[in-house]
Amino acid sequence: MAKKIGIVGGGVVGGGVYEILTSKFPHVCTVQSVAVRDLSKPRAWASAGTKFVDRWEAVVEDPEVEVVVEVMGGTTTAKECVFRALELGKAVVTANKALLAEYTDEVVGKAKGPLGFEAAVCGGIPIIATLQQHLAGDEISSVSGIMNGTTNFMLSKMESSNVDYGDVLKEAQELGFAEADPTADVEGHDVRAKIALLAKLAFGTTVSVEAIPTLGISRIQAVDFDYAKLLGATIRLLGTARKDGESLSVYVAPHVVPATHPAGFASATGPTNVVSIDSKQLGVASLRGAGAGRYPTARSIVADVLRVCAGATVPPFPDPNPNLTLTSDYASRFYVRVIAADQLGIVKAIGEMAERNVVSINAILQNPITDPTNMAFVVTTDAVKHSAVQAFAADVASAPFALSPPLVLNILD
Amino acid sequence: MAKKIGIVGGGVVGGGVYEILTSKFPHVCTVQSVAVRDLSKPRAWASAGTKFVDRWEAVVEDPEVEVVVEVMGGTTTAKECVFRALELGKAVVTANKALLAEYTDEVVGKAKGPLGFEAAVCGGIPIIATLQQHLAGDEISSVSGIMNGTTNFMLSKMESSNVDYGDVLKEAQELGFAEADPTADVEGHDVRAKIALLAKLAFGTTVSVEAIPTLGISRIQAVDFDYAKLLGATIRLLGTARKDGESLSVYVAPHVVPATHPAGFASATGPTNVVSIDSKQLGVASLRGAGAGRYPTARSIVADVLRVCAGATVPPFPDPNPNLTLTSDYASRFYVRVIAADQLGIVKAIGEMAERNVVSINAILQNPITDPTNMAFVVTTDAVKHSAVQAFAADVASAPFALSPPLVLNILD
Repeated sequence: MAKKIGIVGGGVVGGGVYEILTSKFPHVCTVQSVAVRDLSKPRAWASAGTKFVDRWEAVVEDPEVEVVVEVMGGTTTAKECVFRALELGKAVVTANKALLAEYTDEVVGKAKGPLGFEAAVCGGIPIIATLQQHLAGDEISSVSGIMNGTTNFMLSKMESSNVDYGDVLKEAQELGFAEADPTADVEGHDVRAKIALLAKLAFGTTVSVEAIPTLGISRIQAVDFDYAKLLGATIRLLGTARKDGESLSVYVAPHVVPATHPAGFASATGPTNVVSIDSKQLGVASLRGAGAGRYPTARSIVADVLRVCAGATVPPFPDPNPNLTLTSDYASRFYVRVIAADQLGIVKAIGEMAERNVVSINAILQNPITDPTNMAFVVTTDAVKHSAVQAFAADVASAPFALSPPLVLNILD
Repeated sequence: MAKKIGIVGGGVVGGGVYEILTSKFPHVCTVQSVAVRDLSKPRAWASAGTKFVDRWEAVVEDPEVEVVVEVMGGTTTAKECVFRALELGKAVVTANKALLAEYTDEVVGKAKGPLGFEAAVCGGIPIIATLQQHLAGDEISSVSGIMNGTTNFMLSKMESSNVDYGDVLKEAQELGFAEADPTADVEGHDVRAKIALLAKLAFGTTVSVEAIPTLGISRIQAVDFDYAKLLGATIRLLGTARKDGESLSVYVAPHVVPATHPAGFASATGPTNVVSIDSKQLGVASLRGAGAGRYPTARSIVADVLRVCAGATVPPFPDPNPNLTLTSDYASRFYVRVIAADQLGIVKAIGEMAERNVVSINAILQNPITDPTNMAFVVTTDAVKHSAVQAFAADVASAPFALSPPLVLNILD
């Protein structure tokens, strides 16, 4: 018998879910009601007879509604709504990464029935199902990916057009790829919530979003793409959860990614997302596609709804690995770009600061100087601790030749 | 309660499945028995107490065995075994692409219970589950991919080392990537069976493997990579199932793939597989990873077994679309490489042959001639019918300047 679905949220994604479910799957489920903020707003996607209500309780507490689809977003009302639905033992499908990342353990604790959240990370890519089903019981060593379309659009535009950050942000805003306040995207907060969820899926560990070292893309300049190119690479913003021995590190940082890296990050341009998984049995696998958008996101929600309707769901998260310790001081190779006024002794000074901070230098790159009063050079390091490279960068920042604090990016091996 | 699993086939993959199930999932399932060809052969992966039998019937007809894992391969005994298990109403998990591709409708007709075959196409990549679950009800316009690790290893080696086909085949054989008789791989037969299955999954249409136009890689030479590079591209062997309006074309052919193509085919080197799906709601999505190997393949089988044990399976194939007609005469852009003895009037003759066969030429590419008695040039076409480019190539082959029949590759837009 067709299951009864209630949708909370009548925006772009909610409308997309409604359209797909009613046009393609009327034999599997029926949409009982849709809760919206403003009942008077016209909704082109709604067919005649759609029951709109303006209180989420009218959907969630309707005894006939078996599956609640939450697509309103936010962590206040949405939290009440999802928690209530879980308490009532209903199946819940949500796209709300912020809610899930912030209240992971409470959501898991309250869920008695199926919980679907494929749409919460990388809208159109089946990364959640892949981790839950395909990799169950495998030993994952890392999950890493391009998980924000706005910043990937901006970075790949900077790469192809040799323009600076400010110009490309303006263009992204004009095209509707970036919000008027772009902070959540460009400072990496969106990726932070996503990688927290993927870390939980891959390792079972609940990671507080505030504990995740996060660097965005707002200090990247055209010159950094010149240097990345010199390294046979480009720059992508990655969220990473990585296990080394028994320590787990989770971080968000722009990475210098080689063109030849097997995950294919470098060739992902525009608002594309790519998530790569490295595991003992599978080796490196990656999934690529649209990270957001009405229909890609709606499709992930529909896939969850169909799994719920078919009784084909699996546990949302694996058991935590009790031996794993979370560390924020992970090791990586780094790229340190310095803007300086040229003078004698810079290389010697850099060498001394590196030695003092136990940072092993791999190379110093310097394109021909056009303006000696304002020139950029790059120091690449061997694998060193994040804290060590930060201390090195702080030393460089206080040097007389430095015109601004250095930019530190990760280098992907 | 733990379900009882029977494994038919005690080779590399069967052993991998045994290892993963017994070490990671003893609470979910137990391996009741394993059928092997030779009981006396030592098997390092088997733990004490493993029940080996030498007749598949002893596994399949054991009333306690609920799930039969078939990993012996082939289409004779394996067919009897799988058909019998299905007739007995057991859940079947198989990696046997040849069997499934050749007997699709019979297998579907006999299956009363769950049928899992994630491992049958691209061993380690969850392409089957993605099509069955994530894309259910979406309108797919194409599925296309690099699905054979041996040939991708060979092509990417030819690309990076500028060596000819014979040398790279020898190297692949020495490294164990290619069989002593490499026909199934290099002539595209392996990909043909895989794309037949993916076509069934994407469009519901059963496609006979014999009806699939198939071209392998054995006539590709180092010079073709030079010309591909000139086109900002490289060469990859793709299996493709594509819907244009109401006609479906399924084919296997080496493609000239641009470095910038969003599926990332060009950056997939070595034995990597990449499958790309284009659908109405999702846009272009792709999955990349190991296509074969003991543990990647075993992992796909284990994922199926776990879905069966959790009752979390969905229908294997969608209903066929009755409006879809299969055509072998698909349209594409083509690359026609000619080996010729230089003489006056070649370009004019080529132009006349193209016109006669209604082939619209896009470009003629000619690197500086080093040996006028044996020189290669390339004609690229606009989108034309496969039959038209074949007729054009036959005309060129019979021209006095042609030293051998031209090589026709597809060009991926």
